[in-house]
Amino acid sequence: MVVVASINGKSTKGEIANVRVWSSKEDQKYFATLIQKSNLIVMGRETYEAARPIIKLTPHKLRIVLTRNPERFKRFEVLGQLEFTNDSPSGLVKRMETQGYETMLLVGGSKISTLFFKENKIDEIWVTLEPYIFGRGKNLVEETNLDLTLKLINVTKLNKKGILLLKYSVVKPKV
Amino acid sequence: MVVVASINGKSTKGEIANVRVWSSKEDQKYFATLIQKSNLIVMGRETYEAARPIIKLTPHKLRIVLTRNPERFKRFEVLGQLEFTNDSPSGLVKRMETQGYETMLLVGGSKISTLFFKENKIDEIWVTLEPYIFGRGKNLVEETNLDLTLKLINVTKLNKKGILLLKYSVVKPKV
Repeated sequence: MVVVASINGKSTKGEIANVRVWSSKEDQKYFATLIQKSNLIVMGRETYEAARPIIKLTPHKLRIVLTRNPERFKRFEVLGQLEFTNDSPSGLVKRMETQGYETMLLVGGSKISTLFFKENKIDEIWVTLEPYIFGRGKNLVEETNLDLTLKLINVTKLNKKGILLLKYSVVKPKV
Repeated sequence: MVVVASINGKSTKGEIANVRVWSSKEDQKYFATLIQKSNLIVMGRETYEAARPIIKLTPHKLRIVLTRNPERFKRFEVLGQLEFTNDSPSGLVKRMETQGYETMLLVGGSKISTLFFKENKIDEIWVTLEPYIFGRGKNLVEETNLDLTLKLINVTKLNKKGILLLKYSVVKPKV
Protein backbone atom coordinates (compact mmCIF):
# COMPACT_ATOMS: atom_id res chain seq x y z
CA MET A 1 0.00 0.00 0.00
CA VAL A 2 1.24 3.44 -0.89
CA VAL A 3 -0.25 6.71 0.37
CA VAL A 4 0.58 10.38 0.75
CA ALA A 5 -0.65 12.01 3.95
CA SER A 6 -0.43 15.07 6.15
CA ILE A 7 1.26 14.59 9.52
CA ASN A 8 -2.17 14.23 11.14
CA GLY A 9 -3.02 11.29 8.90
CA LYS A 10 -5.24 12.97 6.32
CA SER A 11 -4.93 11.43 2.88
CA THR A 12 -7.02 14.14 1.22
CA LYS A 13 -7.23 17.87 1.84
CA GLY A 14 -10.87 18.42 2.71
CA GLU A 15 -13.17 17.32 -0.08
CA ILE A 16 -10.50 17.50 -2.79
CA ALA A 17 -10.03 13.97 -4.09
CA ASN A 18 -6.97 14.89 -6.15
CA VAL A 19 -3.92 14.79 -3.88
CA ARG A 20 -1.75 16.40 -6.56
CA VAL A 21 -3.24 19.76 -5.56
CA TRP A 22 -1.09 19.71 -2.42
CA SER A 23 1.37 16.81 -2.65
CA SER A 24 4.96 17.68 -3.46
CA LYS A 25 6.61 17.29 -6.85
CA GLU A 26 8.99 14.88 -5.19
CA ASP A 27 6.12 12.64 -4.09
CA GLN A 28 4.47 12.83 -7.50
CA LYS A 29 7.72 11.83 -9.15
CA TYR A 30 8.25 8.99 -6.70
CA PHE A 31 4.67 7.81 -7.20
CA ALA A 32 5.03 7.92 -10.99
CA THR A 33 8.11 5.73 -10.72
CA LEU A 34 6.23 3.24 -8.58
CA ILE A 35 3.39 3.08 -11.09
CA GLN A 36 5.91 2.59 -13.88
CA LYS A 37 7.56 -0.31 -12.10
CA SER A 38 4.34 -2.09 -11.09
CA ASN A 39 2.52 -4.54 -13.29
CA LEU A 40 -0.46 -4.88 -10.95
CA ILE A 41 -2.10 -1.79 -9.49
CA VAL A 42 -5.22 -1.94 -7.35
CA MET A 43 -7.48 0.91 -6.31
CA GLY A 44 -10.97 1.73 -5.13
CA ARG A 45 -13.67 3.15 -7.35
CA GLU A 46 -13.38 6.68 -5.91
CA THR A 47 -9.63 6.74 -6.42
CA TYR A 48 -10.13 5.49 -9.97
CA GLU A 49 -12.62 8.24 -10.75
CA ALA A 50 -10.30 10.91 -9.32
CA ALA A 51 -7.30 9.53 -11.24
CA ARG A 52 -9.10 8.66 -14.50
CA PRO A 53 -7.98 11.77 -16.43
CA ILE A 54 -4.30 10.96 -15.84
CA ILE A 55 -4.35 7.17 -16.11
CA LYS A 56 -2.50 5.99 -19.20
CA LEU A 57 -3.29 2.40 -20.03
CA THR A 58 -0.41 0.33 -21.32
CA PRO A 59 0.08 -3.36 -22.10
CA HIS A 60 1.61 -5.57 -19.42
CA LYS A 61 0.24 -3.32 -16.67
CA LEU A 62 -3.03 -4.42 -15.11
CA ARG A 63 -5.11 -1.95 -13.16
CA ILE A 64 -7.88 -3.38 -11.04
CA VAL A 65 -10.66 -1.23 -9.67
CA LEU A 66 -12.68 -2.54 -6.76
CA THR A 67 -16.32 -1.53 -6.90
CA ARG A 68 -19.61 -2.93 -5.70
CA ASN A 69 -20.98 -2.44 -9.22
CA PRO A 70 -18.42 -3.66 -11.76
CA GLU A 71 -21.20 -3.81 -14.38
CA ARG A 72 -21.43 -0.02 -14.32
CA PHE A 73 -17.89 0.22 -15.67
CA LYS A 74 -18.05 -2.62 -18.21
CA ARG A 75 -17.64 -0.24 -21.15
CA PHE A 76 -14.30 1.09 -19.79
CA GLU A 77 -12.78 -2.38 -19.44
CA VAL A 78 -9.62 -3.18 -21.44
CA LEU A 79 -8.63 -6.82 -21.22
CA GLY A 80 -5.40 -7.23 -19.25
CA GLN A 81 -5.12 -3.49 -18.67
CA LEU A 82 -8.18 -2.26 -16.82
CA GLU A 83 -10.59 -4.47 -14.93
CA PHE A 84 -13.47 -3.81 -12.56
CA THR A 85 -14.37 -6.32 -9.90
CA ASN A 86 -16.29 -6.77 -6.67
CA ASP A 87 -13.83 -9.37 -5.38
CA SER A 88 -12.95 -9.23 -1.70
CA PRO A 89 -9.31 -8.35 -0.94
CA SER A 90 -8.59 -12.00 -0.07
CA GLY A 91 -10.39 -13.23 -3.17
CA LEU A 92 -8.53 -10.80 -5.39
CA VAL A 93 -5.13 -11.63 -3.89
CA LYS A 94 -5.77 -15.34 -4.36
CA ARG A 95 -6.91 -14.86 -7.95
CA MET A 96 -3.89 -12.72 -8.83
CA GLU A 97 -1.49 -15.20 -7.22
CA THR A 98 -3.01 -17.92 -9.39
CA GLN A 99 -2.33 -15.75 -12.41
CA GLY A 100 1.33 -15.54 -11.40
CA TYR A 101 1.54 -12.01 -10.01
CA GLU A 102 4.01 -11.61 -7.17
CA THR A 103 3.40 -8.05 -6.03
CA MET A 104 0.38 -5.79 -5.92
CA LEU A 105 0.52 -2.03 -5.52
CA LEU A 106 -2.49 -0.76 -3.59
CA VAL A 107 -2.97 2.95 -4.18
CA GLY A 108 -6.05 3.61 -2.02
CA GLY A 109 -8.26 5.19 -1.03
CA SER A 110 -9.26 4.91 2.61
CA LYS A 111 -12.17 2.51 2.17
CA ILE A 112 -10.26 -0.01 0.10
CA SER A 113 -7.12 0.22 2.23
CA THR A 114 -9.20 -0.38 5.34
CA LEU A 115 -10.75 -3.48 3.74
CA PHE A 116 -7.31 -4.83 2.84
CA PHE A 117 -6.01 -4.16 6.35
CA LYS A 118 -9.04 -5.89 7.86
CA GLU A 119 -8.39 -8.99 5.78
CA ASN A 120 -4.72 -8.79 6.67
CA LYS A 121 -3.66 -8.51 3.04
CA ILE A 122 -1.18 -5.63 3.30
CA ASP A 123 2.46 -6.52 3.78
CA GLU A 124 3.96 -3.05 3.66
CA ILE A 125 2.71 0.51 3.90
CA TRP A 126 4.72 3.27 2.29
CA VAL A 127 3.69 6.67 3.54
CA THR A 128 4.87 9.94 2.12
CA LEU A 129 4.49 12.30 5.06
CA GLU A 130 3.99 15.83 3.81
CA PRO A 131 4.54 18.74 6.21
CA TYR A 132 0.92 19.82 6.55
CA ILE A 133 -1.91 19.63 9.04
CA PHE A 134 -5.33 19.47 7.43
CA GLY A 135 -8.30 19.90 9.76
CA ARG A 136 -10.59 18.13 7.31
CA GLY A 137 -10.11 15.32 4.84
CA LYS A 138 -10.20 11.58 4.48
CA ASN A 139 -8.24 9.55 6.93
CA LEU A 140 -5.50 7.10 6.07
CA VAL A 141 -7.83 4.38 7.28
CA GLU A 142 -11.49 4.62 8.10
CA GLU A 143 -12.92 4.95 11.60
CA THR A 144 -13.24 1.26 12.45
CA ASN A 145 -11.94 -1.47 14.72
CA LEU A 146 -8.37 -1.81 13.55
CA ASP A 147 -5.27 -2.18 15.67
CA LEU A 148 -2.15 -2.81 13.65
CA THR A 149 1.48 -2.97 14.65
CA LEU A 150 4.06 -1.93 12.11
CA LYS A 151 7.82 -2.05 11.91
CA LEU A 152 9.83 0.73 10.33
CA ILE A 153 11.86 -0.45 7.34
CA ASN A 154 13.38 2.89 6.47
CA VAL A 155 13.05 6.67 6.35
CA THR A 156 14.09 8.82 3.41
CA LYS A 157 13.95 12.60 3.14
CA LEU A 158 12.52 13.45 -0.27
CA ASN A 159 13.47 17.13 -0.20
CA LYS A 160 14.78 19.98 1.94
CA LYS A 161 11.39 21.11 3.17
CA GLY A 162 11.17 17.81 4.91
CA ILE A 163 8.95 15.48 2.96
CA LEU A 164 9.50 12.05 4.46
CA LEU A 165 9.08 8.69 2.86
CA LEU A 166 8.40 6.14 5.58
CA LYS A 167 8.34 2.47 4.76
CA TYR A 168 6.76 0.12 7.29
CA SER A 169 6.08 -3.58 7.25
CA VAL A 170 2.87 -4.81 8.83
CA VAL A 171 3.48 -7.19 11.72
CA LYS A 172 1.08 -10.05 11.02
CA PRO A 173 -0.74 -11.59 13.95
CA LYS A 174 0.46 -15.08 14.81
CA VAL A 175 -2.04 -17.74 13.81
CA MET B 1 3.33 21.37 21.26
CA VAL B 2 4.34 17.81 21.90
CA VAL B 3 2.31 14.74 21.01
CA VAL B 4 2.64 11.01 20.51
CA ALA B 5 0.63 9.55 17.63
CA SER B 6 0.08 6.51 15.47
CA ILE B 7 1.09 6.84 11.82
CA ASN B 8 -2.53 7.57 10.94
CA GLY B 9 -2.60 10.56 13.27
CA LYS B 10 -4.41 9.09 16.25
CA SER B 11 -3.25 10.56 19.56
CA THR B 12 -5.24 8.08 21.63
CA LYS B 13 -5.97 4.39 21.11
CA GLY B 14 -9.74 4.24 21.00
CA GLU B 15 -11.30 5.56 24.19
CA ILE B 16 -8.18 5.06 26.30
CA ALA B 17 -7.08 8.53 27.44
CA ASN B 18 -3.78 7.26 28.84
CA VAL B 19 -1.26 7.04 26.00
CA ARG B 20 1.22 5.18 28.20
CA VAL B 21 -0.79 2.02 27.57
CA TRP B 22 0.68 1.87 24.06
CA SER B 23 3.42 4.50 23.74
CA SER B 24 6.99 3.23 23.82
CA LYS B 25 9.34 3.39 26.81
CA GLU B 26 11.55 5.58 24.67
CA ASP B 27 8.79 8.12 24.15
CA GLN B 28 7.85 8.06 27.81
CA LYS B 29 11.45 8.71 28.79
CA TYR B 30 11.77 11.50 26.24
CA PHE B 31 8.51 13.05 27.44
CA ALA B 32 9.61 12.87 31.09
CA THR B 33 12.81 14.72 30.17
CA LEU B 34 10.79 17.42 28.41
CA ILE B 35 8.55 17.85 31.46
CA GLN B 36 11.62 18.04 33.67
CA LYS B 37 13.18 20.77 31.55
CA SER B 38 10.01 22.88 31.19
CA ASN B 39 8.95 25.50 33.71
CA LEU B 40 5.61 26.16 32.00
CA ILE B 41 3.39 23.27 30.94
CA VAL B 42 -0.06 23.78 29.46
CA MET B 43 -2.77 21.20 28.94
CA GLY B 44 -6.51 20.76 28.52
CA ARG B 45 -8.82 19.60 31.25
CA GLU B 46 -9.20 16.08 29.82
CA THR B 47 -5.45 15.62 29.57
CA TYR B 48 -5.09 16.88 33.13
CA GLU B 49 -7.64 14.39 34.42
CA ALA B 50 -5.95 11.52 32.59
CA ALA B 51 -2.52 12.56 33.86
CA ARG B 52 -3.51 13.56 37.38
CA PRO B 53 -2.36 10.32 39.08
CA ILE B 54 1.17 10.76 37.76
CA ILE B 55 1.60 14.54 37.98
CA LYS B 56 4.15 15.46 40.62
CA LEU B 57 3.92 19.13 41.55
CA THR B 58 7.22 20.86 42.21
CA PRO B 59 8.24 24.46 42.84
CA HIS B 60 9.41 26.53 39.85
CA LYS B 61 7.29 24.48 37.49
CA LEU B 62 3.91 25.94 36.59
CA ARG B 63 1.21 23.71 35.13
CA ILE B 64 -1.76 25.45 33.61
CA VAL B 65 -4.96 23.61 32.85
CA LEU B 66 -7.39 25.16 30.39
CA THR B 67 -11.00 24.54 31.28
CA ARG B 68 -14.29 26.30 30.77
CA ASN B 69 -14.99 25.91 34.49
CA PRO B 70 -11.85 26.82 36.45
CA GLU B 71 -14.00 27.26 39.57
CA ARG B 72 -14.65 23.53 39.60
CA PHE B 73 -10.96 22.89 40.22
CA LYS B 74 -10.29 25.69 42.71
CA ARG B 75 -9.52 23.25 45.52
CA PHE B 76 -6.70 21.60 43.52
CA GLU B 77 -4.92 24.87 42.86
CA VAL B 78 -1.36 25.31 44.14
CA LEU B 79 -0.04 28.83 43.69
CA GLY B 80 2.75 28.94 41.11
CA GLN B 81 2.49 25.18 40.51
CA LEU B 82 -1.00 24.31 39.33
CA GLU B 83 -3.50 26.77 37.95
CA PHE B 84 -6.83 26.44 36.21
CA THR B 85 -8.00 29.07 33.76
CA ASN B 86 -10.47 29.75 31.00
CA ASP B 87 -8.04 32.09 29.21
CA SER B 88 -7.96 31.89 25.43
CA PRO B 89 -4.67 30.63 23.96
CA SER B 90 -3.76 34.21 22.93
CA GLY B 91 -4.74 35.59 26.30
CA LEU B 92 -2.74 32.95 28.12
CA VAL B 93 0.35 33.43 25.97
CA LYS B 94 0.22 37.21 26.52
CA ARG B 95 -0.20 36.81 30.28
CA MET B 96 2.68 34.34 30.53
CA GLU B 97 4.95 36.58 28.46
CA THR B 98 4.19 39.44 30.87
CA GLN B 99 5.24 37.15 33.70
CA GLY B 100 8.58 36.57 31.96
CA TYR B 101 8.11 33.05 30.60
CA GLU B 102 9.90 32.40 27.31
CA THR B 103 8.71 28.95 26.36
CA MET B 104 5.52 27.03 26.90
CA LEU B 105 5.16 23.28 26.51
CA LEU B 106 1.71 22.35 25.25
CA VAL B 107 0.97 18.71 25.98
CA GLY B 108 -2.53 18.37 24.49
CA GLY B 109 -5.10 17.08 24.00
CA SER B 110 -6.75 17.49 20.63
CA LYS B 111 -9.24 20.19 21.61
CA ILE B 112 -6.69 22.48 23.23
CA SER B 113 -4.08 21.93 20.51
CA THR B 114 -6.68 22.78 17.88
CA LEU B 115 -7.54 26.01 19.72
CA PHE B 116 -3.87 26.98 19.88
CA PHE B 117 -3.38 26.21 16.19
CA LYS B 118 -6.46 28.26 15.31
CA GLU B 119 -5.07 31.27 17.16
CA ASN B 120 -1.69 30.68 15.57
CA LYS B 121 0.05 30.24 18.91
CA ILE B 122 2.10 27.14 18.17
CA ASP B 123 5.66 27.64 16.96
CA GLU B 124 6.75 24.03 16.83
CA ILE B 125 5.13 20.62 16.88
CA TRP B 126 7.13 17.65 18.08
CA VAL B 127 5.50 14.38 17.10
CA THR B 128 6.59 10.98 18.29
CA LEU B 129 5.37 8.72 15.53
CA GLU B 130 4.77 5.25 16.88
CA PRO B 131 4.51 2.31 14.45
CA TYR B 132 0.81 1.64 14.84
CA ILE B 133 -2.42 2.14 12.98
CA PHE B 134 -5.43 2.66 15.24
CA GLY B 135 -8.83 2.57 13.59
CA ARG B 136 -10.36 4.56 16.41
CA GLY B 137 -9.12 7.26 18.74
CA LYS B 138 -8.72 10.99 19.07
CA ASN B 139 -7.09 12.82 16.24
CA LEU B 140 -4.00 14.96 16.49
CA VAL B 141 -6.23 17.94 15.76
CA GLU B 142 -10.00 18.08 15.71
CA GLU B 143 -12.13 17.93 12.57
CA THR B 144 -12.22 21.64 11.75
CA ASN B 145 -11.12 24.24 9.23
CA LEU B 146 -7.39 24.18 9.63
CA ASP B 147 -4.75 24.27 6.94
CA LEU B 148 -1.22 24.53 8.28
CA THR B 149 2.10 24.32 6.56
CA LEU B 150 5.03 23.00 8.54
CA LYS B 151 8.73 22.72 7.99
CA LEU B 152 10.73 19.73 9.15
CA ILE B 153 13.44 20.65 11.65
CA ASN B 154 14.74 17.15 12.23
CA VAL B 155 14.04 13.43 12.46
CA THR B 156 15.42 11.15 15.16
CA LYS B 157 14.95 7.42 15.48
CA LEU B 158 14.14 6.67 19.12
CA ASN B 159 14.67 2.92 18.91
CA LYS B 160 15.22 -0.04 16.60
CA LYS B 161 11.53 -0.77 16.09
CA GLY B 162 11.32 2.55 14.38
CA ILE B 163 9.79 5.08 16.70
CA LEU B 164 10.41 8.43 15.08
CA LEU B 165 10.68 11.81 16.71
CA LEU B 166 9.73 14.44 14.14
CA LYS B 167 10.24 18.10 14.93
CA TYR B 168 8.42 20.61 12.74
CA SER B 169 8.15 24.38 12.89
CA VAL B 170 4.83 25.95 11.95
CA VAL B 171 5.10 28.28 8.98
CA LYS B 172 3.20 31.37 10.13
CA PRO B 173 0.99 33.11 7.61
CA LYS B 174 2.36 36.47 6.49
CA VAL B 175 0.40 39.36 7.98
